Amino acid sequence: MSLPLAGLVVLDLTHVLAGPFASMTLADLGARVIKVERPGTGDDTRGFPPFKHGRSAYFAAINHGKASIALDLKADADRATFERLLDRSDVILESYRPGVMERLGYGWEVLHARDPKLIYGAVSGFGHTGPDARRPSYDMVAQARGGVMSITGEPGGEPMRVGASIGDIAAGMYLTQGVLAALVDRARTGIGRKIDISMLDSQFALLEHAVAVASAIGKPPSGTGGRHPSIAPHETFNASDGLFVIAAGNDTLFEKLCVALSLPIADDERFATNAARCGNARLLKRLIEAVTLDATRAHWIAKLTAAGIPAGPIQSVDEVMKDPQIVARNMVVDVLDRNGRQAFKAAGNPIKMSDAEDRTARAPAPDLDGNRGEILRWLDGS
Amino acid sequence: MSLPLAGLVVLDLTHVLAGPFASMTLADLGARVIKVERPGTGDDTRGFPPFKHGRSAYFAAINHGKASIALDLKADADRATFERLLDRSDVILESYRPGVMERLGYGWEVLHARDPKLIYGAVSGFGHTGPDARRPSYDMVAQARGGVMSITGEPGGEPMRVGASIGDIAAGMYLTQGVLAALVDRARTGIGRKIDISMLDSQFALLEHAVAVASAIGKPPSGTGGRHPSIAPHETFNASDGLFVIAAGNDTLFEKLCVALSLPIADDERFATNAARCGNARLLKRLIEAVTLDATRAHWIAKLTAAGIPAGPIQSVDEVMKDPQIVARNMVVDVLDRNGRQAFKAAGNPIKMSDAEDRTARAPAPDLDGNRGEILRWLDGS
Repeated sequence: MSLPLAGLVVLDLTHVLAGPFASMTLADLGARVIKVERPGTGDDTRGFPPFKHGRSAYFAAINHGKASIALDLKADADRATFERLLDRSDVILESYRPGVMERLGYGWEVLHARDPKLIYGAVSGFGHTGPDARRPSYDMVAQARGGVMSITGEPGGEPMRVGASIGDIAAGMYLTQGVLAALVDRARTGIGRKIDISMLDSQFALLEHAVAVASAIGKPPSGTGGRHPSIAPHETFNASDGLFVIAAGNDTLFEKLCVALSLPIADDERFATNAARCGNARLLKRLIEAVTLDATRAHWIAKLTAAGIPAGPIQSVDEVMKDPQIVARNMVVDVLDRNGRQAFKAAGNPIKMSDAEDRTARAPAPDLDGNRGEILRWLDGS
Repeated sequence: MSLPLAGLVVLDLTHVLAGPFASMTLADLGARVIKVERPGTGDDTRGFPPFKHGRSAYFAAINHGKASIALDLKADADRATFERLLDRSDVILESYRPGVMERLGYGWEVLHARDPKLIYGAVSGFGHTGPDARRPSYDMVAQARGGVMSITGEPGGEPMRVGASIGDIAAGMYLTQGVLAALVDRARTGIGRKIDISMLDSQFALLEHAVAVASAIGKPPSGTGGRHPSIAPHETFNASDGLFVIAAGNDTLFEKLCVALSLPIADDERFATNAARCGNARLLKRLIEAVTLDATRAHWIAKLTAAGIPAGPIQSVDEVMKDPQIVARNMVVDVLDRNGRQAFKAAGNPIKMSDAEDRTARAPAPDLDGNRGEILRWLDGS
């Protein structure tokens, strides 16, 4: 019973969200993560609202369970400490703009020559190659330029930002995958690799349907409001007391839905296949709502679920956090303060794994430079 | 120069999007993926529009480079073939509802006893535990119940679906991470693990900011239209010819922005910190738009970018596919037909890695059962 990455050390120079999201996952999987922050202010997200007892809930949600040491990588003494940390690390993560690590003398070529086993994971706005490599970016730029905003929102309406910071998080998740794949590879070869993740690339990589549409019919898709663009019915519907969702994604489910709603259209050729239903989605929505408007969301969700048809509520975030399934899966964990009391709630680890403890609490997010003493003792010790 | 997962074999029983998205990434990283489909119809997404030359662009975008064999796992001859495939596999992936694999005699306990090295990756709507484990789900249910729709869209407006199928894709990405972490672990221990991914868990795990807010102030956040909820300015702004984005995520960038826009507010205490700017975001937006409405998007993006401030266009998907940075990063690849000609375009692999070829084309998505002969020869052969 041990976590799959137990014993691995990640030296984490990243800040804000994309990189820290990756190192959070690696920590949840058992790696020891040492966050190297700039002296004085540290990670910008320490200043992101909301705050509780003077601490950023945002910072805590992403940086729990990591250790922090503040190092000035232009100062000799701190560089020596940094290099001792490098000697003990399996992975280094950084989210500087391309060229910064080289100027510090810690670019990939130098570090790879110094220790061929080291894995180097970089995440940046646009990647380390291409005409815009050195431009700065944030989540919003990746979402806007990467296309997801153009397909989120009402048809013909203003493009909407995805409420979660998917521009950062997608890049963080690909960074995690790249680091893990390099660890798999290193177990065979003994040699580390450099991983170069771009927020723009990562955002684009999620547009499965939209790329397929643009590729096949040459016309870019737009927002579809509350509807899936290539499955029908798979969208929001009005009940007597508000919106809920039905997702009848194949012919069998559609037939079951027609039975459950007493809608005599299962044999109608306009709805005979998913492709036909997509072509007549607006009509189909009205036929379904003519039934669903007669009773409550709870009524329809219970009835359709009993019939084996995917359906569900549209929940606010506090409702999700109390959802019995989310609670049963240990998806809301306590982030402790240094007295062992619950200080914040955070999302748990969605990677459930046999023989790996699924911890219900997380150690605090570190104070800036808060683990210097223990880190130096660890370097001196065993 | 080899891909990091070269030599690994993934036996893929998943369908639709979450599982196939994971096996696509594993294939892009070098694994051999054998897609096991049900005889007759195969993966439902073979019937998803749009079509080109009778083939689903959607299916092609996710299943390129995989091999297909159709097997009836209730028929003895096909079970024997399946078990020979198991003997050659490092990883099995499945997306059935919990209990289906057990009824087929291929549950985790059985397969783990049969071959302790095998890694078993499951993805389902709600996971293999908890009160709703056996309920069916689709992307829309995960997005709605998982909370992301409640924070996407205009404040007070209807909840919006994220235009990409993030309910599926997040689960697919966590499945990939779980499988890779288990491979890292197996390299040390020789023992495989079961990974149990829930679409609902995975969707919830992306809500970093929203969970922090709900945790710290006890009130669930709602949609914020085109704005980041905890960074300001980090949103859409009107220029004379439409919307673009500015993301000035820290004090230094905000000061640069004030200079670039000739806005004399850098010393105004209402905008002195990110927290203060978030509290006065609506006022700040108006002050900025009073300047940006005077010139075009292109003007402002060029000017702000030259000043080192993250800014960018809101691009449609076809614009993204022609974006010089996306093209330079090889993020649009050709999916070939069996004559080696380009049949579709698809998103490339965002995990760029040293000493790994970043291929510009992908082998075709397979016909149903289209690789039976070569798969059987491979089983018979070396």
